Amino acid sequence: MAKIPVGILGATGMVGQQYIALLADHPWFETRFVAASPHSAGRPYKAAAAGRWHHKTPAGEQVESLIVQDANDVSRAADAVKRGDLSFVFSALEMEKETVKTLEEAYAAAGVPVISNAAAHRWTPDVPVLIAEVNPHHAEVIPLQQKARGWDRGFIAVKPNCSIQSYATPVWALIKAGYQVRRLMVATMQAVSGAGYPGVPSLSIIDNVVPYIGGEEEKSEQEPLKIFGAVKNGVIETAAFPKISAHCSRVPVSDGHTACVSLEFGPEKPSIDEVKRLWAAFSGEPQSLNLPLAPQRPLIIREELDRPQPRKDRDQDKAMAVTLGRIRPCPVFDLRFVGLSHNTVRGAAGGGILNAELLKAKGYIS
Amino acid sequence: MAKIPVGILGATGMVGQQYIALLADHPWFETRFVAASPHSAGRPYKAAAAGRWHHKTPAGEQVESLIVQDANDVSRAADAVKRGDLSFVFSALEMEKETVKTLEEAYAAAGVPVISNAAAHRWTPDVPVLIAEVNPHHAEVIPLQQKARGWDRGFIAVKPNCSIQSYATPVWALIKAGYQVRRLMVATMQAVSGAGYPGVPSLSIIDNVVPYIGGEEEKSEQEPLKIFGAVKNGVIETAAFPKISAHCSRVPVSDGHTACVSLEFGPEKPSIDEVKRLWAAFSGEPQSLNLPLAPQRPLIIREELDRPQPRKDRDQDKAMAVTLGRIRPCPVFDLRFVGLSHNTVRGAAGGGILNAELLKAKGYIS
Amino acid sequence: MAKIPVGILGATGMVGQQYIALLADHPWFETRFVAASPHSAGRPYKAAAAGRWHHKTPAGEQVESLIVQDANDVSRAADAVKRGDLSFVFSALEMEKETVKTLEEAYAAAGVPVISNAAAHRWTPDVPVLIAEVNPHHAEVIPLQQKARGWDRGFIAVKPNCSIQSYATPVWALIKAGYQVRRLMVATMQAVSGAGYPGVPSLSIIDNVVPYIGGEEEKSEQEPLKIFGAVKNGVIETAAFPKISAHCSRVPVSDGHTACVSLEFGPEKPSIDEVKRLWAAFSGEPQSLNLPLAPQRPLIIREELDRPQPRKDRDQDKAMAVTLGRIRPCPVFDLRFVGLSHNTVRGAAGGGILNAELLKAKGYIS
Amino acid sequence: MAKIPVGILGATGMVGQQYIALLADHPWFETRFVAASPHSAGRPYKAAAAGRWHHKTPAGEQVESLIVQDANDVSRAADAVKRGDLSFVFSALEMEKETVKTLEEAYAAAGVPVISNAAAHRWTPDVPVLIAEVNPHHAEVIPLQQKARGWDRGFIAVKPNCSIQSYATPVWALIKAGYQVRRLMVATMQAVSGAGYPGVPSLSIIDNVVPYIGGEEEKSEQEPLKIFGAVKNGVIETAAFPKISAHCSRVPVSDGHTACVSLEFGPEKPSIDEVKRLWAAFSGEPQSLNLPLAPQRPLIIREELDRPQPRKDRDQDKAMAVTLGRIRPCPVFDLRFVGLSHNTVRGAAGGGILNAELLKAKGYIS
Repeated sequence: MAKIPVGILGATGMVGQQYIALLADHPWFETRFVAASPHSAGRPYKAAAAGRWHHKTPAGEQVESLIVQDANDVSRAADAVKRGDLSFVFSALEMEKETVKTLEEAYAAAGVPVISNAAAHRWTPDVPVLIAEVNPHHAEVIPLQQKARGWDRGFIAVKPNCSIQSYATPVWALIKAGYQVRRLMVATMQAVSGAGYPGVPSLSIIDNVVPYIGGEEEKSEQEPLKIFGAVKNGVIETAAFPKISAHCSRVPVSDGHTACVSLEFGPEKPSIDEVKRLWAAFSGEPQSLNLPLAPQRPLIIREELDRPQPRKDRDQDKAMAVTLGRIRPCPVFDLRFVGLSHNTVRGAAGGGILNAELLKAKGYIS
Repeated sequence: MAKIPVGILGATGMVGQQYIALLADHPWFETRFVAASPHSAGRPYKAAAAGRWHHKTPAGEQVESLIVQDANDVSRAADAVKRGDLSFVFSALEMEKETVKTLEEAYAAAGVPVISNAAAHRWTPDVPVLIAEVNPHHAEVIPLQQKARGWDRGFIAVKPNCSIQSYATPVWALIKAGYQVRRLMVATMQAVSGAGYPGVPSLSIIDNVVPYIGGEEEKSEQEPLKIFGAVKNGVIETAAFPKISAHCSRVPVSDGHTACVSLEFGPEKPSIDEVKRLWAAFSGEPQSLNLPLAPQRPLIIREELDRPQPRKDRDQDKAMAVTLGRIRPCPVFDLRFVGLSHNTVRGAAGGGILNAELLKAKGYIS
Repeated sequence: MAKIPVGILGATGMVGQQYIALLADHPWFETRFVAASPHSAGRPYKAAAAGRWHHKTPAGEQVESLIVQDANDVSRAADAVKRGDLSFVFSALEMEKETVKTLEEAYAAAGVPVISNAAAHRWTPDVPVLIAEVNPHHAEVIPLQQKARGWDRGFIAVKPNCSIQSYATPVWALIKAGYQVRRLMVATMQAVSGAGYPGVPSLSIIDNVVPYIGGEEEKSEQEPLKIFGAVKNGVIETAAFPKISAHCSRVPVSDGHTACVSLEFGPEKPSIDEVKRLWAAFSGEPQSLNLPLAPQRPLIIREELDRPQPRKDRDQDKAMAVTLGRIRPCPVFDLRFVGLSHNTVRGAAGGGILNAELLKAKGYIS
Repeated sequence: MAKIPVGILGATGMVGQQYIALLADHPWFETRFVAASPHSAGRPYKAAAAGRWHHKTPAGEQVESLIVQDANDVSRAADAVKRGDLSFVFSALEMEKETVKTLEEAYAAAGVPVISNAAAHRWTPDVPVLIAEVNPHHAEVIPLQQKARGWDRGFIAVKPNCSIQSYATPVWALIKAGYQVRRLMVATMQAVSGAGYPGVPSLSIIDNVVPYIGGEEEKSEQEPLKIFGAVKNGVIETAAFPKISAHCSRVPVSDGHTACVSLEFGPEKPSIDEVKRLWAAFSGEPQSLNLPLAPQRPLIIREELDRPQPRKDRDQDKAMAVTLGRIRPCPVFDLRFVGLSHNTVRGAAGGGILNAELLKAKGYIS
């Protein structure tokens, strides 16, 4: 069976590279279109990424020989779609928020579905913010989005910020089981790769912690509420709970975001054992659909006292699983735990690819 | 004026060394007695500490030539006190908790006051756990402790765990100003020096975070309540508030514990400006008594968005100040901030020396 | 085909664990016997390794349920060999050198071949120190070793120190091509995992370099000469060249030893291009025998200016390849380059397993 | 006595900031003029450096209120000199090499002496490259430089690259004692601060070593030869020896460059004891002139097996001393040792200030 040809916008940036690396052996998708800034445009990908390629292994000859397109020129992708040489694009654009917003809309309007990593459209009411195991049903707004905007083939679907992946899914598993999570306090210890490349200067982080990441706490507090929200009249209504407070810090770790979480339930409170049981048993559509990049178990529980740890747990199950540990009562709220996920795989390109697999399996892309 | 001769129990360990380093140029105290395990006993300090001395500069000839005593043999210190060659000892013993408890009592019974860093006596009701700026009045239980136990000259006073120094003083400043702090959620990012030497293996912490420190969360949750407690009938009654929940993690930082704190007040809630004003103005007995190791300002506020940071702020004011930043509202509780202090200075030997200075200034030791 | 049952001496230590992890899916060998200190003996491996297991994934149920034997009791392994339940043992013993020496001899005498990681027998003249791609022919001393000592089935074969793996093979490739390497100056930057666990304290290495590793420079200077030596009269004669000077430092890196090397040739000097050609083409018996753990190419050349790097290159080809870069003229000697290898895989357990595969393929073990 | 008013070109960059920090309490000099890029010009220094100031303590009110000048506009400094408000400038310009070259000449031509950190003029034959303890006599080319170029008051004097400070002075001490150093092999492990700010991305250096620093090896090999050269006919003739080979690597260390050095002497070879004696006794003009920033001993010898280490030794004697250790025979050359110096103090701003103190004391500036 021929693979589906896909494109990457922002292909030379760090997340763009991660997409290329993860798609290298993908059973369904094949990178056939790469676009980046005008500066990179017109050169073979290998030349455009020279000196910036961060992965251990090269991008592969096939991708290296692709000519980089100017991401601002929507017609190149649109023409490729018409020719049948492109099905959809992953957006890893690293531009001004308003520019990304407009550009992603232009791609969608031109018939090119956009599965985006960017923050630009996360608060657009008819754009779903998908965690494939949590809210796959939000995909149902896509036809309404297309209709409202007069788009036929194109649409926009996005994924949330990397910082929330370590706690949104386990919290959802409890909500889904019928427990109300009223309040959530989280302190994250985030890897430097979350800031891209060059990103965090080494002089800022060696023997140090930086207890601030611009915009991160707001995203960590608000995005879960859209993901946990209900679809009404073709738009996604933000959930009222849980109220979230996030302290986000940068630590000297290359990959893997760690989250220390306290939850307050009400009125029903699950026991620690019940929580563990629910998490161990949790499974979503990616698992039932047997999607290629779906982790076998979305939530892995470690019983050792000192886990999860970024270096030991970030790569679990294709770096797509969330690892949970230190599940214990909270003296102030009800439950405490530590969650960990790989921020550039599960939290970025891997999460985007899983969303694309889901949308493909559900018939939104072809 | 002749300096007061002091001793150090556990002198070859990491905290013991820190005492020696900090006392090197102390205007009041002079290290004249060093005791350690039987293994080190009988040798000059220089030989006993060879290969384990961690400070940039040597211990100094005077200390290096002291013969290390067996810390288990209380009579050596007791005799030195009788001869007038020793006033009191700093305990940095790193033994089994019950052994330390018994041994510190034996020293006190033999007429040797013990200013301790160890955890053994922190929950002994008539032993004060002192943060010199917070609860200097707890020293008043010392005479009652001596009377109850039939000790004449000796007594035991201790200091709290290093992890609480980054938030106990700022919280106290608000309580002292009349605000009730009902609930406190804290996530700490703690330096490896807190585990002593050799302590945390490098293989455990390079490119990693360990979200667990044995016993640390319990100490972080409970010790502030004794410090904030009232003296009644010669013993210290534990305060009922705040309820505290602590997540303690180890991060790849050499020195300096960072704490992300959320506070819930009630019923009166100070404004952010009021909090800043109270912290900037906060001062305690060490400041009014002008003690040698007292920081000029116990609480330093940084207005930059990304401070405090361990590498930049841990050494502020002889490494004895607590640096505060990111003071902002909490969407779940009322107030959030980040606190930082130097764990082996303010949080260990420096805090112990400041306690000794306080007790000297208040007439408890001579 | 049934797998060959193998044992591990020192199974709970760091290298022992690495053996277990690498053998988990080995096509030829299966871990069926584990021995460690008397302290661990008598308990299932899972219990004995609890709190010390360092790998991301568990040891596996089969190994976890093995009862740990006392490594000092040779009879257990000898009996297992007689029963056909054990073919040979990997020695990762971490004891006093003389104790290891005697113990490994006792195992060999009792009919248990010993493929060792330990340094004890590296200078025993009739014991081969094998790098499978460099001196597989040294295995021919094994029958003479057995004969001289009156051993029938047992023998001892060892591997060299981890520090030399990053330069010994590329240097050998040049010697093999006919070039005399007269002098070699090497400065290594070694990972902390080389010191085992707990090994290097984090406080010693965060934001630091330790320019000393006990015994490492001597091994780095002398062991290559035995490996490059000729077999004469049943013993290995040390080669006279190259004269080696090694500066060995510890750096804050988890895995992967980097070596900066300068070579002086004489009288024939290869061009840079010739060196690259020889290295790219280099292949040894493990490759021609297609051994399971053999890297496809023992020497990988990276042309980027800033490679090899430990984090990016240590895992190349099952972490068994040596990566080379910065191949350029030396203003003082003739040639300079940087070599990198994974110290706990290629430089320890992986190298040991490759040696066992070689000895199996050549008929020395069955 | 009024302090001498000095200026800083490139004042907002990392080295510029280091100058400001080190001059804060300088007994002779006072920062009265700051210049930077047109982007920063016209704003108070505090505003221009906002978000980029890296030091623990602020720049100080006096400097913070200075209006930043455009460094390209030489007339501002020239006018200040004429008014008596400026004596000379420290150049920490971070521009294109040719631009720096031209600009520094323009300042000198306009009557403003330039004490430079930049590499631009290091190979200009009549410009001295000064290490104050090594070649203070090279300052004698300054009058010839002024005469040849028709400059009256202005001149250019520079300092060498930070990487050579850890070995150039100890090597000079041996040359000065009459020993010929024929060949020198050095491998450096350099701190990230050497690359400025933002400099090395954290993602490039966490759990990693980068065995390449652009241009660094050439500077490390060639600059010592100019410094060791003789003044002939008003220009500095490059010394013929030692031949130097440098491997330069970046390691995860904030400050402090470590150098592993091997020396070949000839024909006379000093004993290890003689080397130690010469280094311990070494002293230069900065010491005899008792210059403010001169270390008491330029070369500090540590006898511990594992020193020097960046974190423990970089701050010795105002971070201006070079610490030496592991002094031992070399099996390939004659002598080996490890040298360490603070790259942004001794190797940059501190070295520049010491040069200015020297030139002031010798009457070249007023």
